[in-house]
Amino acid sequence: MNILLSGEFEASELHVWQQSLRAALPDAHWLGRDEALAVADTVEVAVVANPPPGSLRGLPKLRLIQSLWAGVDRLLLDPTLPAGAPIARMVDPAMNASMAETALWATLALHRGYFDYAQAQRRGLWQPRPQRRADSVAVLVLGLGQMGLTAAKRIAQQGYHVSGWSLRPRADAGDLDGIAAHAGQAALPDLLAQSNVVINLLPLTPATTGLLDARCFALMPRGAGLVNLARGAHVVDADLLAALDRSHLAHAVLDVFRTEPLPADHPYWSHPQVTLLPHVAAQTDPESASQVVAANVRALFEGRPLAHLVQVERGY
Amino acid sequence: MNILLSGEFEASELHVWQQSLRAALPDAHWLGRDEALAVADTVEVAVVANPPPGSLRGLPKLRLIQSLWAGVDRLLLDPTLPAGAPIARMVDPAMNASMAETALWATLALHRGYFDYAQAQRRGLWQPRPQRRADSVAVLVLGLGQMGLTAAKRIAQQGYHVSGWSLRPRADAGDLDGIAAHAGQAALPDLLAQSNVVINLLPLTPATTGLLDARCFALMPRGAGLVNLARGAHVVDADLLAALDRSHLAHAVLDVFRTEPLPADHPYWSHPQVTLLPHVAAQTDPESASQVVAANVRALFEGRPLAHLVQVERGY
Repeated sequence: MNILLSGEFEASELHVWQQSLRAALPDAHWLGRDEALAVADTVEVAVVANPPPGSLRGLPKLRLIQSLWAGVDRLLLDPTLPAGAPIARMVDPAMNASMAETALWATLALHRGYFDYAQAQRRGLWQPRPQRRADSVAVLVLGLGQMGLTAAKRIAQQGYHVSGWSLRPRADAGDLDGIAAHAGQAALPDLLAQSNVVINLLPLTPATTGLLDARCFALMPRGAGLVNLARGAHVVDADLLAALDRSHLAHAVLDVFRTEPLPADHPYWSHPQVTLLPHVAAQTDPESASQVVAANVRALFEGRPLAHLVQVERGY
Repeated sequence: MNILLSGEFEASELHVWQQSLRAALPDAHWLGRDEALAVADTVEVAVVANPPPGSLRGLPKLRLIQSLWAGVDRLLLDPTLPAGAPIARMVDPAMNASMAETALWATLALHRGYFDYAQAQRRGLWQPRPQRRADSVAVLVLGLGQMGLTAAKRIAQQGYHVSGWSLRPRADAGDLDGIAAHAGQAALPDLLAQSNVVINLLPLTPATTGLLDARCFALMPRGAGLVNLARGAHVVDADLLAALDRSHLAHAVLDVFRTEPLPADHPYWSHPQVTLLPHVAAQTDPESASQVVAANVRALFEGRPLAHLVQVERGY
């Protein structure tokens, strides 16, 4: 079987992916764009990682576009995307775990003041402060997909009060392993007002772009922390900086930005209340992700239902 | 019943403890040292928090010395400590949880490189690095008391390979909820050689003082991290600085020091591979600790066995 592999990779990264994909699907031939066009009528699957716009043109037989990344917001912006070919997101258990690790680390650090102690160390200050118990800290996870849910459960395991929110109700809404699940715009203000830590794991869609703005920050209690692990465009940067500067929000942990790498002159770099990461909260694990790709490709050729399909109209 | 309350507290802290202890033991009269001496024959219990040496002299009827702190190494150094009065350590579930939070936070940060990313942020560098899965990281917890065990279990829950070590075998040695428990000096070198993260939660005794020295660091694999949450005197500071400076150890998280507050000119303050905390890894929670005190005091007067007794000859 002929599969197009298209995306932006560093050379060493591409090599790792090629190895993992070959091991997971030993019968497949992995083709670049030019090779695929030469045998266009035989290419039914494209495996993509933010492919340059236009990369999927001229492949009339595509029956599956499988993303290697969890976020498909950039992919869906390509106006030349073939209509009708199903698109599948990556839902990689190793990546979910990795994202949950970052969310848990940020929650522990915000709760226990470890970012502030790091500042104090740089200023040579020995300043122990009173300690709060985890069960007095309320954490809100925005986005209850596989990543949000994994993070919410691991944080709840540590004794925090965890709520979850999504734009649309989950099919299995209600109490999920101790996480109170809420849905819809109307539910958000009350949840924000009760939350000491807000963790963003929403998909980026027109409905969620700019959701984390001045109105949202004003609803959060004074001293709360924000953790953005989803997409830079969820946050209105000027509003966040203003909320930090007046110390309404105590700290922000940011992994994603509207422009990446974050431009050298951006105020986030040197802001004492910002901890920034270079988009590393969760990387797809080539080994486990290749198994997910292989399972979906086999499902396609054996006529079974495909997993993790994107609903283009909702944007994820 | 008359109880001596003796220790070093800040005024606001003392107030909180008095409130919690009164609520937990409403029948008790809490006396200072001079008041206690005036009714010395009626004082059967002393509740102490690093009391100044000599504080327990002249109280011939003492039947229980209950520490509010988990570590009793300073208490046991008092040569005037009344012989024969049983000493109980604090074993506070809230404090165990709090210590486990710090151990877990440090493990996540070392595994995921978050201390390095903080350095990169200060230097304006966007440098994503490849990611390892938790199940490829080996964590060794030194000390398998209640704190060590709680920390080890929570870290294992996140998918890390966790081993535990104590100087003497535990009565229930073996596999404890997925933690491989080892004991004795002879077992330590192999464990150190296999561990990417070493977390110290040992009691401070003559046998463990200076345990974390050049020999121990040399056994650990290159790039490993050290987390000291127990006592400063467990670490030979010059050896640790040397191991960090030649980058054999990648990073150390230190909460405790031989002199506290850490002197302003100590090299730890500005060392880029040291994250230091002002002895806040786990504070005793007055509310839950007072319940532990009350349970032991009631046991004493009702003739039931006392909990958490110190074996003076082993030092904890």
